[in-house]
Amino acid sequence: METASLTGKEAAAALNAETTELAAALAARGRAPRLALVVANADPASAWYVNSLRKSATNRGIECDTIDLGTDADSAGLRAELAARTADPAVDAIMLQTPLPAGVKLEDVAAAIGAEKDVDGVSPLSLGLLAANTPVFAPATAEAVVVLLKRHGIELTGRHVAVVGRSNVVGKPLAQLLLAENATVTVAHSRTADLAAVTSAADIVVAAAGRAGLIRAEHVREGAVVIDVGTNEGPDGSIVGDVDAESVRGRAAALSPVPGGVGPVTTALLMRHVVRAAERSAQV
Amino acid sequence: METASLTGKEAAAALNAETTELAAALAARGRAPRLALVVANADPASAWYVNSLRKSATNRGIECDTIDLGTDADSAGLRAELAARTADPAVDAIMLQTPLPAGVKLEDVAAAIGAEKDVDGVSPLSLGLLAANTPVFAPATAEAVVVLLKRHGIELTGRHVAVVGRSNVVGKPLAQLLLAENATVTVAHSRTADLAAVTSAADIVVAAAGRAGLIRAEHVREGAVVIDVGTNEGPDGSIVGDVDAESVRGRAAALSPVPGGVGPVTTALLMRHVVRAAERSAQV
Repeated sequence: METASLTGKEAAAALNAETTELAAALAARGRAPRLALVVANADPASAWYVNSLRKSATNRGIECDTIDLGTDADSAGLRAELAARTADPAVDAIMLQTPLPAGVKLEDVAAAIGAEKDVDGVSPLSLGLLAANTPVFAPATAEAVVVLLKRHGIELTGRHVAVVGRSNVVGKPLAQLLLAENATVTVAHSRTADLAAVTSAADIVVAAAGRAGLIRAEHVREGAVVIDVGTNEGPDGSIVGDVDAESVRGRAAALSPVPGGVGPVTTALLMRHVVRAAERSAQV
Repeated sequence: METASLTGKEAAAALNAETTELAAALAARGRAPRLALVVANADPASAWYVNSLRKSATNRGIECDTIDLGTDADSAGLRAELAARTADPAVDAIMLQTPLPAGVKLEDVAAAIGAEKDVDGVSPLSLGLLAANTPVFAPATAEAVVVLLKRHGIELTGRHVAVVGRSNVVGKPLAQLLLAENATVTVAHSRTADLAAVTSAADIVVAAAGRAGLIRAEHVREGAVVIDVGTNEGPDGSIVGDVDAESVRGRAAALSPVPGGVGPVTTALLMRHVVRAAERSAQV
């Protein structure tokens, strides 16, 4: 079987074109959308990601402030900063970067981001609105998986999707989104007894475990669709997914590449969310 | 195979004894726990349930106010009432009864219940705190399933659990609780293509679809454990579950009865939550 490549560039380009147009319309009406990126680490991968978000924002016509609180920031300081940006009418959208300083828990500080500005859907209220089927913003990576599947014409209603990984930022919110699309959803993880048995029963496998090469041919039913959310550092420093592409190719009907699959759609969705947040605040 | 009966009375009795003792301790320190039941319907089943909750509360030493807003109540009125009870320091816990008046959505009004008083875990924030693994109160029916399984010594780590039903009040929060217990979780529902194939792959099947007799022998693997969350009205007016007990008996290793399974544990957990809310507010 030839394995199709589920690239993200087409979905990202379509979203980006729309975002650029909407941002220009907002700027023409008086104010460009504004994103605040809050950072409290000295991690090179985070710095690289912040830089790429800033570039994306600029390319779309979105103003972008980076607020670096340093590695000594504590929960109270982070919460105060996030609450101040939530209260600031000049800021439309807020993203909190990880990793956070030692001892600071994402759930504790994310609650200070107002749901209407929480464009990556990390706060407990955002997660709860998603769980109640009334989301403001879903976590962008999780939403990107659904957008990528739909863009490639892959039906979700009645299909069985296995999500490997139960993180609060990808696996669990993705399960909510897939249920809302009428998929049957299995969430597997590090404590799953027989991972291959579980995933090979599924029509679609989404790998979001953060373990390079975890998903191999034996985890995938012939003809299944495989989405790779992993972004792990390979032995040579390159980015590698959670799927062993060599092993799965020829068995899966389709596989999303890493890089170039879920990643560009995630960034495009974040920018789309920023504009949506700005449109909402312009209406108030 | 003989099918064991997973009754809820032992778990309920243990919880109730603990709750009664804790409520008495709070009363001795100055104030008994206080629950507000907010009603806006004329439904006989709801009236029966409210009455049984009032009796349970009284038996535990919990004060209970019923606030009936009538069937004409609108979203704004319900939200105002729930916000007032949330602000009232004399009230420790709030439960909103369903059904709600036509046009009123649970998600809209439940947001007005403060998480610290939301003893049935219905507000979006409560659902999100559960999704973020930092729950204040989980929905009591979902939690009752886990308590019942544990009480009967049924291991969850690494086991595959199929939850049939994706409601915001049972199926979806139960999936979160089971993932936190290290189970592999599948959520199936009315749009699932081949329900029997999905559920018969599981070690444990939880029926929470609200359809009498939905789960039969062909849905259950020999030796599986079956939990019945359903409370449907049978042809003769009696309460019947989602599981066809006749059909499953002899095939399942264990089955929870309806009534007498999940139900009494749910009520006991609600009262336990009321006392926990009162203990928290006494500490503030």
